[in-house]
Amino acid sequence: MDDTEARHTEKMKKRQAAHEKILASKTREKGLLIVHTGPGKGKTTAALGMVVRAMGHGQKVGVVQFVKGAMATGEKAIFDAFPDLVEFKPMGEGFTWDTQDRARDIAVARTAWEEVKRMIADPAYHMVVADELNIVLRYDYLPVDEILETLTARDEMKHVVVTGRNAPAELIEAADLVTEMTMVKHPFRNGVKAQAGIEF
Amino acid sequence: MDDTEARHTEKMKKRQAAHEKILASKTREKGLLIVHTGPGKGKTTAALGMVVRAMGHGQKVGVVQFVKGAMATGEKAIFDAFPDLVEFKPMGEGFTWDTQDRARDIAVARTAWEEVKRMIADPAYHMVVADELNIVLRYDYLPVDEILETLTARDEMKHVVVTGRNAPAELIEAADLVTEMTMVKHPFRNGVKAQAGIEF
Repeated sequence: MDDTEARHTEKMKKRQAAHEKILASKTREKGLLIVHTGPGKGKTTAALGMVVRAMGHGQKVGVVQFVKGAMATGEKAIFDAFPDLVEFKPMGEGFTWDTQDRARDIAVARTAWEEVKRMIADPAYHMVVADELNIVLRYDYLPVDEILETLTARDEMKHVVVTGRNAPAELIEAADLVTEMTMVKHPFRNGVKAQAGIEF
Repeated sequence: MDDTEARHTEKMKKRQAAHEKILASKTREKGLLIVHTGPGKGKTTAALGMVVRAMGHGQKVGVVQFVKGAMATGEKAIFDAFPDLVEFKPMGEGFTWDTQDRARDIAVARTAWEEVKRMIADPAYHMVVADELNIVLRYDYLPVDEILETLTARDEMKHVVVTGRNAPAELIEAADLVTEMTMVKHPFRNGVKAQAGIEF
């Protein structure tokens, strides 16, 4: 072995040792605060995918949908087959999204949030999904301080997933894992409407 | 009504008419080529969420995983409860991802692709998911031209979802809906390891 080769071997060994040291340091298990935000597709569907994974591991999951309403028919039919593993609450039905009945919208958001709080407090739930909660925060229907107080005080093994565009900065700051979904291309531009199995 | 008000009303009417015209033009239903790419989380989980939605509408879905292998235990347990609605093929088990056995890796990728092709050709499937196919294309284990030929020649009502970072430009060009998942924050940085129900 000449000098160059020896140096290379030494370098690779060091690199391998450093890599193993990093892996060995990833030992903690903890409940994650996960945020899916951004203008792209996939925020809710990625949360649903996580629900399915957790269910598959026998973990109980609670899902509260703050906005979707009557559109959320697809996943509900499947989740209904596993009543012991998932509690699915589409609370947002009837959201008006205008200021004509702001008081009623706030009341609906409050009721949905109470459901989330109950699931977070109940040790039976491994994961709680607050779907489109960001939208509610964006409209100031619920105070972000109150939401963060509950989220940060939760049991340290509980996973919480919050979805919706325009996640508030305070939530991103508090989160463990934040993914932004960006739209690169959308079929609406070509006259294609929302379809069963894709959008709902 | 003074002049200013009348102009405003006229303007709003025009705006409403334009909005309705846009909505009325969204009438097409067609099979979409959907790509989830980017370095962030949620590419596969968003595809799994779409699978659950489609299943909930009684649509049959085929899922071929090119890479995940033994990690993909969570979703499988749930999908196995619906053998008529979903065919789930984790083909990537044993991928080596190094050049030690490139010929074997190519053979595995080829076998997985043949499964995808079969599902695309079979009218029974409404949606086909080629999970992590982009990785295989990135490594040149399969020729992108051949993949695109099959994808563009498919039945016009069939949805195909391709996931994986580094989607080739040709695939993005051919796709109807492309979402890029961007990592904003990752718990690995704080020593947290991959956990059941989250990563797998």
